Amino acid sequence: MDETVESLGEFGLIDAVQARLPQGSEVILGPGDDAAVIHAPDRRVVATTDLLVEDQHFRRAWSGAYDVGRKAAAQNLADIVAMGARPTALLVGIAVPPGLDAQWPLGLADGLRDECALVGASVVGGDVVRGEAITVAITALGDLEGRAPVTRSGARPGDVVAVVGRFGWSAAGLALLEHGLEEPAEAVEAYRRPSPPYDLVSPATTAPMTAMIDISDGLLQDLGHVASASAVALDVQTALLPIDGTVTDAAARVGADPLEWVLTGGEDHGFAACFSIAAPAGWQRIGVVREGRGVTVDGVPPRGRTGFDHFRRLES
Amino acid sequence: MDETVESLGEFGLIDAVQARLPQGSEVILGPGDDAAVIHAPDRRVVATTDLLVEDQHFRRAWSGAYDVGRKAAAQNLADIVAMGARPTALLVGIAVPPGLDAQWPLGLADGLRDECALVGASVVGGDVVRGEAITVAITALGDLEGRAPVTRSGARPGDVVAVVGRFGWSAAGLALLEHGLEEPAEAVEAYRRPSPPYDLVSPATTAPMTAMIDISDGLLQDLGHVASASAVALDVQTALLPIDGTVTDAAARVGADPLEWVLTGGEDHGFAACFSIAAPAGWQRIGVVREGRGVTVDGVPPRGRTGFDHFRRLES
Repeated sequence: MDETVESLGEFGLIDAVQARLPQGSEVILGPGDDAAVIHAPDRRVVATTDLLVEDQHFRRAWSGAYDVGRKAAAQNLADIVAMGARPTALLVGIAVPPGLDAQWPLGLADGLRDECALVGASVVGGDVVRGEAITVAITALGDLEGRAPVTRSGARPGDVVAVVGRFGWSAAGLALLEHGLEEPAEAVEAYRRPSPPYDLVSPATTAPMTAMIDISDGLLQDLGHVASASAVALDVQTALLPIDGTVTDAAARVGADPLEWVLTGGEDHGFAACFSIAAPAGWQRIGVVREGRGVTVDGVPPRGRTGFDHFRRLES
Repeated sequence: MDETVESLGEFGLIDAVQARLPQGSEVILGPGDDAAVIHAPDRRVVATTDLLVEDQHFRRAWSGAYDVGRKAAAQNLADIVAMGARPTALLVGIAVPPGLDAQWPLGLADGLRDECALVGASVVGGDVVRGEAITVAITALGDLEGRAPVTRSGARPGDVVAVVGRFGWSAAGLALLEHGLEEPAEAVEAYRRPSPPYDLVSPATTAPMTAMIDISDGLLQDLGHVASASAVALDVQTALLPIDGTVTDAAARVGADPLEWVLTGGEDHGFAACFSIAAPAGWQRIGVVREGRGVTVDGVPPRGRTGFDHFRRLES
């Protein structure tokens, strides 16, 4: 099909997107009205929003529309899960240039839909506008199912710090692509489509948590948010960190330090949490909470950059 | 202050924005965590999202940051109100160029906050990223307070069609600015800051409604959505339309047809509804619902364009 978004038109595009989006049992009124209506059985709704801008957060040369959809959904669904909530719905606004192949937004919708399916959420509404740079704005909603939200502010001295998911994989994949490499393919794939370990954040695991955060900007930086919000110090022991062979392999190919990727690489959307008891099955203990302020690595403040600031990306 | 968003940094900017945003009683957990938590007492949440892109939806030469904030909030809050719901919360994602004066996003936040205050909603969360074109992504949430949502699909033959709010004002203001004019100031102001008549959509007025829609893309086009969703015909009687002297005055100055602005101008965010009884106080009856399909004006199909398609804006 050679149709562009302009030739299809705003409403033709919206119809084509909607046709690809099944509506789950949480949806009372899906796309097509002034607003959607979604079940919120807990009487509280959890909500988060993120923007992805072409050439800032993705490149069309490196990521297909479907990949961008998976990634955009994943980073928002992970934020909901990081509150101890169950994701229910996604809303998506997209800005696209008029000459863009209409398959692009349709592929995006497929990616959003398939990532949502992993957690039982539905894409319930959105907006399509014209813009020079492709921009994807996602809002995710979730339900707490009667539980207290797990915030960043409850960590206490003596807690165990533990993580689950991938660390450094996306940074490795990005570095490989920047060097014109496509192997190890698992790292490149991880850059294109993060795999947040949704299933390892269950009501049983969140119950003994004192704090949790989605690792989107880098482990040290995001742990710093927990330390700050909880007014405690967090010490990470590098000997305990999960450094996968895929990350080590990629680092060797481009002459990078795998530990730096694990400590500062973003976009894998693993989770870090503090526990008042031993970390549950499937979680990896990586450190402890102490009296004090800030994050240390093996007892000393980290050197160099700790993660990602969208306006200071070149600083170290 | 000569600070730019880059010199302030992502987290400095987020802190400065958050400091301007009071959190209302509906907010359980506001900005600063992975996600916000908002009361949803009805056990259903109403949600809508819109994107505004610089030079597509606003021009910095014509609208200040505060105006853009008011307008961005208004168009989303109006969508919530058009479902018969009470707005509770707004989430905002913004993409900004690094060299932008940091006052711009702060002014935007002030505008969002002040428009929210009109309906008792709070700005509860957001995202700030880098982008060449300023982009504002808004999601609004609302509560149905036990009522059924008012959709577009319930209009029945014999219903009265009625409207409330301004029609053609924003189109008039835009045309004046395009002609380098600033008078009548009321029209230019209406373009910069729509005034949705939130207070005239109360539980008492929504009870006898069979359908309602927010007029964002033009009266005829948006009534067309009601006709389509309800599988009925809507006839608009031009003699009944509210054509304000401000619109007539502006039209005379630029040689335009005020009636066309009223019928096809968007962005005023008035409301149109169908009623099974006489229109309530404050609402203006403008037509009737009949058997059939589509929208007619004084009994005949409208000529020319009926409203705004974001990808076909130059078609007629």
